[in-house]
Amino acid sequence: GSDDVYVGFIGKSRNVSKHLSFADLTTPSGETIQVCSSAERDSEAHDDFRKVPAFSPVLIRVKQHEAAADVESATSNGSSKKTVYLESIRALNSVPKNLIVTPEVQFPPTKRHLQIRYHPELQARLQFRSWLKGMLNQSLLQKGFTDIETPTLFKSTPEGAREFLVPTRQKGTAYALSQSPQQYKQVLMASGIMRYMQWARCYRDEDSRADRQPEFSQLDMEWAFAGAETVQKDVNDIVLAALTALQPARSYKEIRGEFTNITFADSIAAYGSDKPDLRIPLRIHALPDLEPFRNFVGMITHLTNPLIEAFALPLNDCSPSEARKFVTKFMDELPPSLANNPDGKPQILIHDSRQPLSGFSSLGFEYESVLDLLTDKKGLQDGDLVVFQARDTPAGQYYSGSTRIGDVRNLLWKALVEEGLVETPRLGEPGSLHFVWVTEFPMFKPVEEGEPGQEGAAGIAASHHPFTAPLSQKDLELLFTDPLEAKSAAYDLVLNGIEIGGGSVRNHIADVQDFIMRDVLKMTDKRIKDFSHLFEALRSGCPPHAGFALGFDRLTALMTGTPTVRDVIAFPKTMKGEDPFVQSPSKLSNEQLAPYGLQLRPKAS
Amino acid sequence: GSDDVYVGFIGKSRNVSKHLSFADLTTPSGETIQVCSSAERDSEAHDDFRKVPAFSPVLIRVKQHEAAADVESATSNGSSKKTVYLESIRALNSVPKNLIVTPEVQFPPTKRHLQIRYHPELQARLQFRSWLKGMLNQSLLQKGFTDIETPTLFKSTPEGAREFLVPTRQKGTAYALSQSPQQYKQVLMASGIMRYMQWARCYRDEDSRADRQPEFSQLDMEWAFAGAETVQKDVNDIVLAALTALQPARSYKEIRGEFTNITFADSIAAYGSDKPDLRIPLRIHALPDLEPFRNFVGMITHLTNPLIEAFALPLNDCSPSEARKFVTKFMDELPPSLANNPDGKPQILIHDSRQPLSGFSSLGFEYESVLDLLTDKKGLQDGDLVVFQARDTPAGQYYSGSTRIGDVRNLLWKALVEEGLVETPRLGEPGSLHFVWVTEFPMFKPVEEGEPGQEGAAGIAASHHPFTAPLSQKDLELLFTDPLEAKSAAYDLVLNGIEIGGGSVRNHIADVQDFIMRDVLKMTDKRIKDFSHLFEALRSGCPPHAGFALGFDRLTALMTGTPTVRDVIAFPKTMKGEDPFVQSPSKLSNEQLAPYGLQLRPKAS
Repeated sequence: GSDDVYVGFIGKSRNVSKHLSFADLTTPSGETIQVCSSAERDSEAHDDFRKVPAFSPVLIRVKQHEAAADVESATSNGSSKKTVYLESIRALNSVPKNLIVTPEVQFPPTKRHLQIRYHPELQARLQFRSWLKGMLNQSLLQKGFTDIETPTLFKSTPEGAREFLVPTRQKGTAYALSQSPQQYKQVLMASGIMRYMQWARCYRDEDSRADRQPEFSQLDMEWAFAGAETVQKDVNDIVLAALTALQPARSYKEIRGEFTNITFADSIAAYGSDKPDLRIPLRIHALPDLEPFRNFVGMITHLTNPLIEAFALPLNDCSPSEARKFVTKFMDELPPSLANNPDGKPQILIHDSRQPLSGFSSLGFEYESVLDLLTDKKGLQDGDLVVFQARDTPAGQYYSGSTRIGDVRNLLWKALVEEGLVETPRLGEPGSLHFVWVTEFPMFKPVEEGEPGQEGAAGIAASHHPFTAPLSQKDLELLFTDPLEAKSAAYDLVLNGIEIGGGSVRNHIADVQDFIMRDVLKMTDKRIKDFSHLFEALRSGCPPHAGFALGFDRLTALMTGTPTVRDVIAFPKTMKGEDPFVQSPSKLSNEQLAPYGLQLRPKAS
Repeated sequence: GSDDVYVGFIGKSRNVSKHLSFADLTTPSGETIQVCSSAERDSEAHDDFRKVPAFSPVLIRVKQHEAAADVESATSNGSSKKTVYLESIRALNSVPKNLIVTPEVQFPPTKRHLQIRYHPELQARLQFRSWLKGMLNQSLLQKGFTDIETPTLFKSTPEGAREFLVPTRQKGTAYALSQSPQQYKQVLMASGIMRYMQWARCYRDEDSRADRQPEFSQLDMEWAFAGAETVQKDVNDIVLAALTALQPARSYKEIRGEFTNITFADSIAAYGSDKPDLRIPLRIHALPDLEPFRNFVGMITHLTNPLIEAFALPLNDCSPSEARKFVTKFMDELPPSLANNPDGKPQILIHDSRQPLSGFSSLGFEYESVLDLLTDKKGLQDGDLVVFQARDTPAGQYYSGSTRIGDVRNLLWKALVEEGLVETPRLGEPGSLHFVWVTEFPMFKPVEEGEPGQEGAAGIAASHHPFTAPLSQKDLELLFTDPLEAKSAAYDLVLNGIEIGGGSVRNHIADVQDFIMRDVLKMTDKRIKDFSHLFEALRSGCPPHAGFALGFDRLTALMTGTPTVRDVIAFPKTMKGEDPFVQSPSKLSNEQLAPYGLQLRPKAS
């Protein structure tokens, strides 16, 4: 009969004898076919076959419709792959002679293509990302969202992050790469678009912080005539629809209903963080009465008006001595921000029934009231930990994203998981994904040095961004009297202790927006004028609106069980913003700069 | 009963009497509800209702479950909209007092949001764009494509277009915004990705040309182990799937099968363009023998070795005198490139049976052989046009995208359609969309002054881009001897005379790619080194691959019947690259430039 033609990558050959070899061929559709080459059938083809290096792209011809059932039993792996007899083989390109491929091999960043090709996990992550994107996209379109692309060549506005500039050949002018489609999407709400979505590339020129990229992808959304409730419901719906479609469906289905809500203040109090990781059992409690523990308090802090917070952490069948060994190591390796903190070092006690007061003698005889509080009266086992940390009793609203006890709790949990001393559900198991909406954030915070903020003169900056609406009438009134006490209508979606998205109800009344920029943030007329397009839009009968953006790199990383977004991006940049693979950024010359009316600044000046 | 609450935009009120008014409310789901306000029911609510300006965002309360069938007959438009009785109304924002909205009103670009909101066609175009994108996306995912996002913060490489630079705070270095994901997607083919897709934002710093945007969207695709045939089949499939899903389905379905293929050379010969508009009937023909028409040829050109081309254009029931009037006007308004062209002006003759030789006496007695050739012996009616244009008989391969007779033909067709002298099917009717693949392009063309090209010293540039493979073994051999005669494996997809996408089979053998850059284009070592990542990828056993990119702005514009991409982009830039709505780009200051180690170039130097 005539020949069938196959193309694909050929794998390592398995030589049964000098005259009989097998190799797997991966075809463009992803199918794996077993190729059998026999010298007895065709010695020339067999010679060619044995010369083609593993991992080559090849074109092979095989006899059409030839059953090969007899061969299957002879294969080394006994799988039920389709097997074909080789008639001829041709390598379609050369491969490097020194290519070593094992499931564990790590290629340097300069060989990213080999990492993608040979690291099955990385390729599976990229495939999952594509699948998840398609699912979320489809859900939003089905809900009636309109996919609208907005410009990334935008202009410089003081939104909060540092922007990249793009000089133009209209000398002395530049675009700024948009930090997010925030302003354009709000304008779309004034444009009669009821539901907007976009897979937006966003750009922030951030100082090298852990696991941020200068460009990143967000699923950007905005709702007209809607508030936080509608936003949260729709986001829950699309995420849950994707989880439900996932295999294994059963276990992910049980996540349904595990979306919870918590206010910022409650989250700080209970978890010491505005990104609570609900996989960690038992919350933080403040000791309601310090009187019985005066000595202990004096030991752990020098603060005059301390708030003492504590949490318990039950370990997984761990002896007190084992726990003690762990705690010593943990405390030795504590980062300076916690070890040398002015509020006093964290204190970790270990439940040990063979010790006086079960190991809590430093607390004194009323220690059991503390354990009752921390464990909801369930009590502790030997080896379980109790952690204490002091902080100043806050005078007003708390602004930071975490307290020290919250930081200790997260760090401790991570270390215990690594050591196998606590168990956490594996990805895909029930309880492995905890989504929580954090709400009622402080509207402003004091400006931190070096942060771009909104360039206002008031010494405060919007916590979320300056377009966020106050939470309630009361918070609007606080803007006039004590803005640092006001809460905003911002909300974050947190998954397993990581923020995967954020949004807010926006100021849709131009006068409120103007008041916030002019009177609260004390921005200059000139800076406020940069937003004139937004004011124009709000004044044109803009409906109330609210929005959300899902950090898609981060979400994909979490859902594929990797701690870094670099594992879900085909060509990530380093923390210095470099792409080692293509070697960007590259040197600028005065010649390149001339068309833009720019030049390099002399080093001496 | 209790109240129902509705939100939405309220339309103009129709006052039946002082005591009875109606207005339409457009809700977030897009539904239109008729609101009836009656002073007899509630005089306070009625007063409020009459005070709320048209186009306000409002919140209304109505009596729940109240049938309003009795009201419908009283409405002015007699539609079957749901009607509700007003209980109370509250405006959610103010609207400008001077807002004038009619179906025809055009707002200035500084009020783009109002144009989107009140121009039903613009909003419908944006909705259609979103729908089409979703359809194409789904089709590709179903075909097994992987959606992979590649960086836009790339580096400067001489691909062919002018790039935008993005300076970084690593002083003296810059990214370049990627012109397309070309290089990254080829690397993905070496990375074991079999089918790649991406909705890619692309950036080109182009001199203001008609209807180009500095940033634009393309649906970018690449296929491993595939050639032109597979690419074209898959692209046809996804476009046809979308057309089939469109309403009215019947007429679009008939487009199936109307995808045709033509070579560049044939397209130039038959249509005088590499972007043939197949809606125009009758092709161009070269006169095979000029001997019988010596006088005529001498009249229309001074070329010594002319090629005379001609086409006929049957008009739609037009008298010779009417045709003459049209032709006179057309010739008077001919652009200088055609009117003053060195090959001689185009010559238009009009069929007129009352004239000697039916109006073709300048051709002489053998004129009928010309008409037979041009009309395939079908002949002409009175008023029909015949157009002649000379050009130099080409010595070698033709490089330009069009000939003068092709330009005249397109211009004439457009003018005739505008005047109603020919008919063309309306969008959505059978024959309204003609897709054609143009293939076998010249691989190189002489470098035109001022074009960035690939910075080679050979005086030639790749017509498509320097990664395009030669068409055949013969064309590969021509690279050594006469590269300007070589054809490439590039292909364009053309819809109704407009290029909507392009692609090619790529060079997957590193040595061939190196030869083209080094020996044919004569690029410097330094410039070739800019592509070292690509060479590295090709050398790692990269399979043969081919790709395509669909210009999505252009496709949407054509499919929604608008001549400009600005009508399918929410916030387009002007031809000068400005966004008049947000006023970008904006002025650069030395202060802004300092972090990048840059400064403004003094004007005098």
